[in-house]
Amino acid sequence: MMSSSQNATAALAYAPIHVMADSLRAGTWSASQLVDCYLQRIGCHDEKLHAFAEIYEKEARIAGELADRAIRAGQRLGPLHGIPIAFKDLLDIEGRPTRGGSLFWRERVSPVTATVVQRLSAAGMITLGKTHMVEFAFGAWGTNATMGTPWNPWDPQTPRAPGGSSSGSGVAVAAGLAPAAIGSDTGGSVRIPAALCGIVGLKTTVGRVSNHGALMLSATLDTLGPMTRDVEDAALLFAAMHGPDRNDPQTLAHPPVDALADLKSGVAGLRLAVLSEAELGEIDPEVARAFVLALEVMRGLGARVETLSLPLSYRRLADLTGKIIAAEGYALHREWIDRDDAPFDVHVRDRIRWGKTLSAADYIGLMTERERLQREVAWALRDLDALLLPTTPLPAVALAEIDQGKSPMSLLTRPVNLLGLCALALPCGFTAGGLPISLQIVGSGYEEARILRIGWAFENATDWHNRRPPVP
Amino acid sequence: MMSSSQNATAALAYAPIHVMADSLRAGTWSASQLVDCYLQRIGCHDEKLHAFAEIYEKEARIAGELADRAIRAGQRLGPLHGIPIAFKDLLDIEGRPTRGGSLFWRERVSPVTATVVQRLSAAGMITLGKTHMVEFAFGAWGTNATMGTPWNPWDPQTPRAPGGSSSGSGVAVAAGLAPAAIGSDTGGSVRIPAALCGIVGLKTTVGRVSNHGALMLSATLDTLGPMTRDVEDAALLFAAMHGPDRNDPQTLAHPPVDALADLKSGVAGLRLAVLSEAELGEIDPEVARAFVLALEVMRGLGARVETLSLPLSYRRLADLTGKIIAAEGYALHREWIDRDDAPFDVHVRDRIRWGKTLSAADYIGLMTERERLQREVAWALRDLDALLLPTTPLPAVALAEIDQGKSPMSLLTRPVNLLGLCALALPCGFTAGGLPISLQIVGSGYEEARILRIGWAFENATDWHNRRPPVP
Repeated sequence: MMSSSQNATAALAYAPIHVMADSLRAGTWSASQLVDCYLQRIGCHDEKLHAFAEIYEKEARIAGELADRAIRAGQRLGPLHGIPIAFKDLLDIEGRPTRGGSLFWRERVSPVTATVVQRLSAAGMITLGKTHMVEFAFGAWGTNATMGTPWNPWDPQTPRAPGGSSSGSGVAVAAGLAPAAIGSDTGGSVRIPAALCGIVGLKTTVGRVSNHGALMLSATLDTLGPMTRDVEDAALLFAAMHGPDRNDPQTLAHPPVDALADLKSGVAGLRLAVLSEAELGEIDPEVARAFVLALEVMRGLGARVETLSLPLSYRRLADLTGKIIAAEGYALHREWIDRDDAPFDVHVRDRIRWGKTLSAADYIGLMTERERLQREVAWALRDLDALLLPTTPLPAVALAEIDQGKSPMSLLTRPVNLLGLCALALPCGFTAGGLPISLQIVGSGYEEARILRIGWAFENATDWHNRRPPVP
Repeated sequence: MMSSSQNATAALAYAPIHVMADSLRAGTWSASQLVDCYLQRIGCHDEKLHAFAEIYEKEARIAGELADRAIRAGQRLGPLHGIPIAFKDLLDIEGRPTRGGSLFWRERVSPVTATVVQRLSAAGMITLGKTHMVEFAFGAWGTNATMGTPWNPWDPQTPRAPGGSSSGSGVAVAAGLAPAAIGSDTGGSVRIPAALCGIVGLKTTVGRVSNHGALMLSATLDTLGPMTRDVEDAALLFAAMHGPDRNDPQTLAHPPVDALADLKSGVAGLRLAVLSEAELGEIDPEVARAFVLALEVMRGLGARVETLSLPLSYRRLADLTGKIIAAEGYALHREWIDRDDAPFDVHVRDRIRWGKTLSAADYIGLMTERERLQREVAWALRDLDALLLPTTPLPAVALAEIDQGKSPMSLLTRPVNLLGLCALALPCGFTAGGLPISLQIVGSGYEEARILRIGWAFENATDWHNRRPPVP
């Protein structure tokens, strides 16, 4: 049994950011209390959960005190001021290590501070630490053979896949060790851990959020996005993170948007689409059932749910995506990935080495096919507000049962990256065994505000996001 | 000796478009006369010059009559109405052959009409025919072992390189067989034949002119541009050709510009740069001398000519460009280029096959390096109006002396493609042996109007563009 003080701490730890922000403003909580709360919980539980690669205890406490002083002086910067956050260990913070989940980079020191870290810090957020991840961000299960695999908090007994590659970010937020974390998503790496850990994850469109200062895997597909307790928090972080940055030319064509203005406007009259069942491939029956119920919720809220027939094979799209990631990952890592004496996770190493087998012509063919598909799908989605899919075809699988050679987990997320879209993953149910199930709301490129609005309406009508995992 | 009627025909044939347009408007010449004049000259001289792959005599005559009828009825469409033009044989005209310089495609029928053909036809231009080219547009000398090499009209005795790949377009305009032609430029294919044939050639920026309906060599680098008698004509054609086209997504981000408004505003006070001599590589002494004199002309017109030190090797840039073209060319042609029974020009075949040796990682590395170089050079050019270079390091070389394995001709043009810039080639002198020398005015991306303005000022102060070749 928990003590009442532990219960109070847990209540604080699981509060969404927008609630914390109200309490900070009202003075009922302080930033130092928040920092203390999370550092205490990390101290108690992270040995088992293994979400954090690095904890900045001293700096976080000082930042908490400074934030409180600013609040007392009336200098509150906005809704993120004084709120703790964790960063995936592929985001640079100048002078500190960034290892990208790899023992090979254990001595690497960040040469710059990533733009997202700068922006969230400028908005007053307090960095708790860096979270574990799949080596080089290439893996959907969330395992890491050399740095350790975070523990999915929804099963206290059996170690289960946390989802990857932003595994530690997912576990930290799900287990109340941080109210939010930033992940990266190249083929599902924000959405899959969000799905398997029962939290919210936003995969942004390429060019929407600066990648400056993030270790890359695929220049074509890499994106950064928030992982949070609820949709409003994702919108708050997205609002602070996104927008043009001189250090990332891809962002320059995409002026900022107001992601909060219409957040709570509901979905009445919006046109949502689902794909005909056959095209979804093999979906776990409990996931399929939760998905159908989610559609009912959307209909109940006044949305129009239509069936869209897209002549695309998910398996083909996921395969194309995997090839692009492997080719670009190999191009980035070729100088060391071929070394047999380096301490790589062999599963990741083999995925990247496979990129070596592709020729320039193969790669150009893949990119040409991608452009064609992007145009076709952009056209098919032109009059729709979003496409609904499950996020993963399965709930969290036991580590003992996973096949490292092939992960089904990214089957429904990779196409979103390939096609230049954005997507929001959010809880939409639980299995009989208590594992989270996730709904994926897919939008056209740069329609983050719209999918957040749809997600908020769904969340506001359901209670799935309020459930807490049994661990810790 | 020419007869006086031949002389009159030649005067007509060598008139620039803007002069013809005035005469058409005034009624002193008719479109039918223009069509007759060029068809007659083609009939007389193209057996030797071999500029045309196909001549649309009947259609051109009908179009001439229709144009005259419209003019008589007061329906003149603009300055291009009733003016003949030739198209490089890689531009589709629906239902007609487009062979891309290849015997392999001799049966190919165009499925669409290229956007530039549509636009120039809509402006009233009359298609005389299609011009010869280097097979698959991959070669700077201008030779074609299977379809025949056009004759450079500046030397009646010795067959010399016309420059490629838009060889027939260069020869047709230089020899007064057409007042203008459209070429494509992937590494210099508009500018090199313009230089070696003593005419004006505009290499546009990628995305400025729609590539829809053009046979591709390199999706990254291919551009279309006008080849004309003078700069004003190039500006007139550019004005009619460029601008967004739904069928080429690359154009959609680049709204039209007014290329004529400031054309005659001069260069007083403009900042032009030259690179320090060492970086230009091996330049023929007569070319170097003409270049220095061209700088004097610019200074005399009030331009500021500065020395810019760019830490770039032209050879390295040209090499990167060649690799990208080979990789993308191989990706496009892989289905047939490996067949030993197909009737390819072996030099072109070998250049393209070489692209097969590049891996996906090599190609991705090239593209990454290109992006870095583009950013560096864009920064170096930010306060400059243009960079001046020779177009080719040598004048037209005798065919007997050329090395098919390596062409120096694209050394100073390829970097412009690689770096995402635009450039204008125009006559700036002649060798003692009477071969044309060309000045290259290089602008930042999408600054076509500015380089046309600079070119117009130079041309207006010199007389090189008025000289006619001895053949025919």
